[in-house]
Amino acid sequence: MAPGLHRSMHKTVTIDLVEGILEENRMIARANRGHLRNHDVRAFDLLGAVGSGKTLLIERMAELLAAREVRVGAIAGDVAGDDDHRRFQARGIVSENLNTGKECHLDAHLVEHALEHLDLDRIDVLFIENVGNLVCPADFPLGAERRVVVISTTEGDDTVRKHPLIFRDADVCIINKIDLAGPVGVDVDVIEGDFRTVNAHAPFIRTNAKTGEGVEDLLDTILGPG
Amino acid sequence: MAPGLHRSMHKTVTIDLVEGILEENRMIARANRGHLRNHDVRAFDLLGAVGSGKTLLIERMAELLAAREVRVGAIAGDVAGDDDHRRFQARGIVSENLNTGKECHLDAHLVEHALEHLDLDRIDVLFIENVGNLVCPADFPLGAERRVVVISTTEGDDTVRKHPLIFRDADVCIINKIDLAGPVGVDVDVIEGDFRTVNAHAPFIRTNAKTGEGVEDLLDTILGPG
Repeated sequence: MAPGLHRSMHKTVTIDLVEGILEENRMIARANRGHLRNHDVRAFDLLGAVGSGKTLLIERMAELLAAREVRVGAIAGDVAGDDDHRRFQARGIVSENLNTGKECHLDAHLVEHALEHLDLDRIDVLFIENVGNLVCPADFPLGAERRVVVISTTEGDDTVRKHPLIFRDADVCIINKIDLAGPVGVDVDVIEGDFRTVNAHAPFIRTNAKTGEGVEDLLDTILGPG
Repeated sequence: MAPGLHRSMHKTVTIDLVEGILEENRMIARANRGHLRNHDVRAFDLLGAVGSGKTLLIERMAELLAAREVRVGAIAGDVAGDDDHRRFQARGIVSENLNTGKECHLDAHLVEHALEHLDLDRIDVLFIENVGNLVCPADFPLGAERRVVVISTTEGDDTVRKHPLIFRDADVCIINKIDLAGPVGVDVDVIEGDFRTVNAHAPFIRTNAKTGEGVEDLLDTILGPG
């Protein structure tokens, strides 16, 4: 959601404008979805704070998919830089880099441009890594079929309580770096309990992207049967 | 900066509107600054991603200040909930809770309201903990005299490269959880090097808020001589 525009400063005129932008985003997201379907590409949006482990989770899933002869692509979204994009390329993942400049989330229009640059007929599964942020991406669907929200144990046990909206709308919730739960004194069951208060049904999966623990479960969950 | 409004969707009309909001925020921030000065309150804005350790750093600084008979207050900013506010209160820190609803940063107007609720004549040092975010708060000064940006080693070593703007404008940079640098495989010198490329002069301080390591250095740095 637009910072400083919605509630603060008491400027109601901005709300209509923001609603117009959100509606335009939703329209482009639907077009992206159709475009991806036409090319038989299954796309997944990965959200989470800085350092939650989105990039490494994508790398791990790509390894497993490569072993299944599934062709993987990625869109690396960041405010600046191409660290994640280069990481994907170093792993042999077809990747497109998206910099938002000052924005704290990807939008469907940026993703539309990235899709133009990817050869979708050579991609079966596309991971869209959003900007590291738990607030802004909430209102901006991109056209992916599922939204995976990633938490790291190192964020503490209050992340869900502080950001209920993005967890309410998550299709899958990942708690990553479970090996560090002990060292940082975090109880994963508390996080799962908080998640259940805002989201009754979405799978809650524990992973350690470093070792690969839980990643096959994650992959099977998002791809579903068949 | 306003997500989805500045670069995306190609709506130039929004830019003027955003500039107006930013200018209004700067005006209120200046008023907040004057108001704090009139009450001899020194205020510091703490920024950083979710889980970087802002709350615990404030708690540790408050302990040290209490020992010096300096009276501490805090404003706890979050999208939702009052976890940090209750943590401050449990430590005997005078605290005001600010929820932004859907916004990803505090603004000067919200802080203005919080200041109305605090008894500033009983506070010497005020810590303003911003929403856990490395993008949105950049353009919204609040009226604090210095801006402290906190990184955790668990975010990986690319946080500065991904968010150059907020580090360029930082008055102090903290790298926290240095005890976890080894376990997560992060080289703090790389982070410091990246920081120096965008910010030549601001102090770069290594802390472990859990043990208190480096916190006295942080406190002396922000308070300065005298």
